[in-house]
Amino acid sequence: MTAATCPREESSLGRVQDLLADFFDEATARASSYGPHFERLWREAGRSVSGGKLVRPLLLLNAYDALTSEGARSRRPAARGEAVERLAVAVELLHYAFLLHDDVIDGDLLRRGRPNLVGEILGDCHRDVVDASRALHWAQTCGILMGDLLLSASHQGFARADVPQAERLRLLDLLDLTITDSVAGEQVDVGLSDGVVDPELATILDMTTRKTATYTFELPLRMAAVLAGAPGGVERRLGRIGRHLGLAFQLQDDLLCAFGDPELHGKDRYSDLREGKQTAIIAAARATPEWPRVEALLGEAARSEENAATLSGLLAECGAQARVVELAERELRSAGELIHAPVGELPVGVRRVLLDLIGQLRGRSS
Amino acid sequence: MTAATCPREESSLGRVQDLLADFFDEATARASSYGPHFERLWREAGRSVSGGKLVRPLLLLNAYDALTSEGARSRRPAARGEAVERLAVAVELLHYAFLLHDDVIDGDLLRRGRPNLVGEILGDCHRDVVDASRALHWAQTCGILMGDLLLSASHQGFARADVPQAERLRLLDLLDLTITDSVAGEQVDVGLSDGVVDPELATILDMTTRKTATYTFELPLRMAAVLAGAPGGVERRLGRIGRHLGLAFQLQDDLLCAFGDPELHGKDRYSDLREGKQTAIIAAARATPEWPRVEALLGEAARSEENAATLSGLLAECGAQARVVELAERELRSAGELIHAPVGELPVGVRRVLLDLIGQLRGRSS
Repeated sequence: MTAATCPREESSLGRVQDLLADFFDEATARASSYGPHFERLWREAGRSVSGGKLVRPLLLLNAYDALTSEGARSRRPAARGEAVERLAVAVELLHYAFLLHDDVIDGDLLRRGRPNLVGEILGDCHRDVVDASRALHWAQTCGILMGDLLLSASHQGFARADVPQAERLRLLDLLDLTITDSVAGEQVDVGLSDGVVDPELATILDMTTRKTATYTFELPLRMAAVLAGAPGGVERRLGRIGRHLGLAFQLQDDLLCAFGDPELHGKDRYSDLREGKQTAIIAAARATPEWPRVEALLGEAARSEENAATLSGLLAECGAQARVVELAERELRSAGELIHAPVGELPVGVRRVLLDLIGQLRGRSS
Repeated sequence: MTAATCPREESSLGRVQDLLADFFDEATARASSYGPHFERLWREAGRSVSGGKLVRPLLLLNAYDALTSEGARSRRPAARGEAVERLAVAVELLHYAFLLHDDVIDGDLLRRGRPNLVGEILGDCHRDVVDASRALHWAQTCGILMGDLLLSASHQGFARADVPQAERLRLLDLLDLTITDSVAGEQVDVGLSDGVVDPELATILDMTTRKTATYTFELPLRMAAVLAGAPGGVERRLGRIGRHLGLAFQLQDDLLCAFGDPELHGKDRYSDLREGKQTAIIAAARATPEWPRVEALLGEAARSEENAATLSGLLAECGAQARVVELAERELRSAGELIHAPVGELPVGVRRVLLDLIGQLRGRSS
C-alpha cells in the first residue's frame, strides 16, 4: 500500500520524510545534554521509524490537495501548505507513539522481522546488565517513555499548527476523539487477549474500527476537510468513508498475517496465529463446525511454525478466510457507495483519490 | 504540605477541585458509550486522584495572583482568571499521568497504603480472570492507557488555553521542556534501579531535579510569570528558584520515606528502602565507612519490616540522613538567596508566596 497516487505524492513524501528526519535529529541533539541513555533513546527512535510507508500523512496531503484544487486553493494562504505538511508529521508521530506502547503491551521485540525499539535497547543493554529480567524491564521502560515523548510531540504539532485558532480547535477535537477511540479500541484488544472481554465477531469488528480505522483513515481525511475549509457535511462523509476503508485495511492486515506470503508483505509469518490473537478470522472460525479443531490448534500454534501452518490451512478450509475476505469487501463496497452518493456531493478530485485508494486496497498483497 | 497560604487559596482550591471533578465526570460519561471496561477505567481514574493536595495548581494560582496584584491585575482581561485555573488543572493532569506510568514502571499496586488504579483494576478482574499473570497484564495495560489519556488531556488543556497565541506558544515551550526533563529524569531513575546507570550522588541529585523539581515547582512558577506578563528575567529567576525548592521537596520526600512516621506523612513505611531504590540517602551512605553493612542490608530490606527498620537506623547512624537533611537545607538556602537577590528584583507579593513556601518546607513532616 502506498496510499493514493497523485502528482503531489513524490514531493510530499520527500517533504514529510525530511520534516520527520529533522524532528528526530533535533530531538537527538537536544537529548545529548541529558546524557548517553537519553540520546541513545532518541537516536534509536529515529532509526526505528525511518522507511515507513507514510500511509497517513500521504492520505492527508492528497485529500487536502484534492479538496483545494479547482480554484479553491487560491483562496488559501501560501503558508497553509507548510502547516498541512507539519500536521501530517504530527499524525505520523501519533502512529509511532501508538506502535511503541502497543509493542510494550504485547511484549513484542520485533517488528517486520527486525528488532523494534525495545528489542534494540534490550540487545544493547544485555552487554552491560547481567540480570535478564532487569534488562527487559529497562528496555520496556524506554519504550513507554519514548511513547510518551512521541505522544507529546504529536500534540505539540497540533497545538502549534499555523492556522486560525478556531480551525486549530477543530483539529484538536479530532485529535481528542481519535485518541479516545484508539485507546478504547486497544483496551478491548488487550481484554480479548487476556480473556477479560468475550471474543464476539461484532466486538472484534468494533474494536478494529476504533483501534485502527479512526487514526489511520478517518483522522487524516477529516483533518484534510477542516484544513481545506470544506463544508461540515463533506467532513462527516469523509469520516464515515474513512472508517469503512480503515476496517477493510485492518481486516486485510489480519488476512495477510494469517495467509499471506511474508516475502511479499514483510510481516512476520503467522505472527497473529502464533500469538493467539483474537482476530476477526478466529471469530469467524468460531461460527463453523470446525471450531473445536481450530481451538485445539490455537493453543499449539505458538510452539512451531508447522503448527501455525496447519492452523492457517484449517482457517482457510473451514471458510473463515473467505468470510473475512467478504467482510473486507463489504466495507470497500460501503465506502464506494458513500463516495458516489449524490446528497452533499464530494468534489471530483477527492472522489478520485478515494477510488484510487479502494483500487489499491482491492489489489493489496502487502 | 499545602503550598503557600494566601487569601485566594480557599476559593482556588475549591474551583480547581470542581474543574477536575467535572473533567473526570464528563470523560466517564463519554466513556460509557465505549462499553463497561472503558467507563470503569475513567471512573476509577477519577476516584484514585480525588483528595490530592493540589500542590502544583495552588503554586501556579498563588504565584499568578501575587504577580498580578499591585495594580497589574486590572490590565489583564477578566476571563484570564478562568484560563489560569484551567491551566492549573492541566498541570495536575500531567502529574497524574506521570504517577500512573511511574506506578506501572515500578510495578506498584499501592499508593499511600491504598490500591492505586492498577491495584483497583487488578482486584476487580481477579473475580473474572483465573490466570494471575494475565490479570496483572490487563491491569497494567489499563494503567499505561489511562496515562496516555491523561497526558493527552494535559496537552489539550495547554493547547486550548484562552490566551493569545504567542503566550500559548510560550506555555507549550514550557510544557515541552518539562516533559523532556521529567522523562529524562525517570529514565535515569529506572536505569539506577536496573543497574544500567551508576549510582553517583551527583547523578541522583540531577535525576531528582529533572524528574520532580521541573514539573512540580519550576513549571507552575514559570507559567505564572508568562500568564502574568512578567519580564523574562523574573520568569528565569522563578525557574531557578523552583528547581531549588523542588529538589529540597523531593529530598524531604526521600527522608520521610526512610525515617518519617507513616501515621503523619501517609506514605508507606520504609517503601523506598524495601524497594531498594537508589536515593540520595543511599548514595550518601556509600561515602561512609558503614557502607558494607548498609549494602548487605539493602538486599535484605525487602524481606521484612524489621530489616527495613534496621537499615533505617543504620542510615541515620552513619550520617547519611544528616547529609541529606543538609543537602535539602542547602537547596532552601539557595532558593532564599535568589528570592532576595537585588538584580531583577521580584515583586514583593511573589517573594512572600515563595518565603511562605520555604517556611512550610522547613517545617515539613508530611
